[in-house]
Amino acid sequence: MGLPQIKLSRIDLEWVHVLSEGWASPITGFMRESEFLQTLHFNSLRLGDGSVVNMSLPIVLDIDDSQKNRISGSTAVALIDSADNPVAILNNIEIYKHNKEERIARTWGTTAPGLPYVEEAIASAGDWLIGGDLEVIEPIKYHDGLDHYRLSPSALRAEFEKRNADAVFAFQLRNPVHNGHALLMTDTRRRLLEMGYKNPVLLLHPLGGFTKADDVPLSWRMKQHQKVLEDGVLDPENTVVSIFPSPMHYAGPTEVQWHAKARINAGANFYIVGRDPAGMSHPVEKRDLYDADHGKKVLSMAPGLERLNILPFKVAAYDKTQQKMEFFDPSRPQDFLFISGTKMRTLAKNRENPPDGFMCPGGWEVLVEYYDSLAANDSGRVPEPIPA
Amino acid sequence: MGLPQIKLSRIDLEWVHVLSEGWASPITGFMRESEFLQTLHFNSLRLGDGSVVNMSLPIVLDIDDSQKNRISGSTAVALIDSADNPVAILNNIEIYKHNKEERIARTWGTTAPGLPYVEEAIASAGDWLIGGDLEVIEPIKYHDGLDHYRLSPSALRAEFEKRNADAVFAFQLRNPVHNGHALLMTDTRRRLLEMGYKNPVLLLHPLGGFTKADDVPLSWRMKQHQKVLEDGVLDPENTVVSIFPSPMHYAGPTEVQWHAKARINAGANFYIVGRDPAGMSHPVEKRDLYDADHGKKVLSMAPGLERLNILPFKVAAYDKTQQKMEFFDPSRPQDFLFISGTKMRTLAKNRENPPDGFMCPGGWEVLVEYYDSLAANDSGRVPEPIPA
Repeated sequence: MGLPQIKLSRIDLEWVHVLSEGWASPITGFMRESEFLQTLHFNSLRLGDGSVVNMSLPIVLDIDDSQKNRISGSTAVALIDSADNPVAILNNIEIYKHNKEERIARTWGTTAPGLPYVEEAIASAGDWLIGGDLEVIEPIKYHDGLDHYRLSPSALRAEFEKRNADAVFAFQLRNPVHNGHALLMTDTRRRLLEMGYKNPVLLLHPLGGFTKADDVPLSWRMKQHQKVLEDGVLDPENTVVSIFPSPMHYAGPTEVQWHAKARINAGANFYIVGRDPAGMSHPVEKRDLYDADHGKKVLSMAPGLERLNILPFKVAAYDKTQQKMEFFDPSRPQDFLFISGTKMRTLAKNRENPPDGFMCPGGWEVLVEYYDSLAANDSGRVPEPIPA
Repeated sequence: MGLPQIKLSRIDLEWVHVLSEGWASPITGFMRESEFLQTLHFNSLRLGDGSVVNMSLPIVLDIDDSQKNRISGSTAVALIDSADNPVAILNNIEIYKHNKEERIARTWGTTAPGLPYVEEAIASAGDWLIGGDLEVIEPIKYHDGLDHYRLSPSALRAEFEKRNADAVFAFQLRNPVHNGHALLMTDTRRRLLEMGYKNPVLLLHPLGGFTKADDVPLSWRMKQHQKVLEDGVLDPENTVVSIFPSPMHYAGPTEVQWHAKARINAGANFYIVGRDPAGMSHPVEKRDLYDADHGKKVLSMAPGLERLNILPFKVAAYDKTQQKMEFFDPSRPQDFLFISGTKMRTLAKNRENPPDGFMCPGGWEVLVEYYDSLAANDSGRVPEPIPA
């Protein structure tokens, strides 16, 4: 091809995957400036017919000065992977300034150093963004043994139809499933049946793109989720397990809108939202970056998501009297134990067991095995497979 | 009154003024959390009937821990001025967290130190915000000889009706009017007449609230604007000069939406938007804080402002061949001189004259007089009158 080439990073390729399958519909290519500005300022886009769709995260491709100079005069560029294979063509391109500080401030509500996505994908990015219409050469595959889990929105819709689902409730996660999560999902199904739905189907939808270094990698999470189904904690009859190909921003109330919007595009009509969705600790200060309730509140008011049914997460905790995960009962706080993600990881690292009933034994074994492999490997983290 | 009291700062009082007169309609009191979150994330509010109105700046009242403790249990508070006179009651109050970092990042797109409004009103503000329904005891007056210029939105609408205006075009400013501005305003009128309007009226609407220390104070600007009308640069027959009581955020594309929205509430249906509206230099880096075109672009796409007619500002500059301000002609750049605000202030400070035709002589004399008074006073800035 005679087109100027842009080499994609791993995260760029994840976005190509996301865009090519329609998760961000009606956006089908890297954003042009009008879409970028609407995303930053309004978390939504106004379409030609006056309707409004939600779009809270910028999906953009950066280039540096020298790349910009090489492209000059072209109306299209070829996007290539790390092995120089062509992946996609970006047509009718538009190049505009990449004000990184403003992008970060408006997306995360902070510019503090140490935001994982910023460090990975923005801090050393180029000073220009290039938008256009994306034309993918062939479907993105990762060849990591997990591609069969990567169903596109249309494949998921077909699956829900095949199962005769009359309600689809989506659960976004980037962590191992413990029995608190499972309680919530089974309770949601119970509520939907009570509401009169005959066949509610759960979309258990772990995020498959970039995650921060101390999150459990996708391959291990998928093993753990498989055990949870094998152990009967969730019912395979009314559960679809699939991978959501997006990278993670950890942008709290801004990102939870993206997580919900993308699942609507895949056929979900109910979205389970928990405490502090897509949140993390402040990278510098000793506090959570976001108010734990803001995600739920912002999601409930977000433009373009008016028709989504939001199911707020009740807080589950370990009930010492029943020796299982239960919804927290504020009348007897002394009976409950909150086991944080950090606590869970520390236990697994030290090969200690959590209290009985916290997670199914098969799932816990996977976690312990993961941390054992880490210690053996000593690199700090098992590397993620690279898409090819 | 037995109500807990909150003492208002000068900027708080300016917001009480803004809210009480309906500039921020349908918001009529300091924001509750749902309004605050929608403002930060969406620059707009969804009303009960599903319609959307623009609202890009948080209009909030902060309190600290001890004030919050004193209020505890009350459903209303009294707002008092610096002389302890009651100004308003805030009813059905809601107290919620004031995450200053997030507010600043999402409003300004930066958290760099040195943003004038942040330094003045946020940096040392309390960690809580208090929202509620505002009930003002009597109209806010400043007794500075300028109150007759402070027309409310309904007074302005009545004035436009009295003048049989069939189009109202608003011009927001916080600087002295030079002949480039005047050219733009007269040219806008010409365009509106060409479009078929019979009686377009200009709302010349200087901002009257908080401005940064190196801006020319309101009282001097009003003198200068008066001279511009007396000297015949603008025609009093089709010009209404009034003061917009809002404080200035210098928040660029976010703030320009507020500037336009408030003028719609006062009856304007055309809004003139210039290069880099509500912009300033980056407080730390050597560049403008905002892209000069973003204000216009964001305004044109802003939710709730779909029906506003935006008139983009052509760039005017001093044409040396004609010895007057003219629209810049890119075919002969060498003939034009750009005179920045900084350059203008430096000339006036040094009692030097700008090129003939840059500003009417009467207006220029006011500016020179202002900088003379500053030098005499030596306090760095003539203090603004305090509202009483």
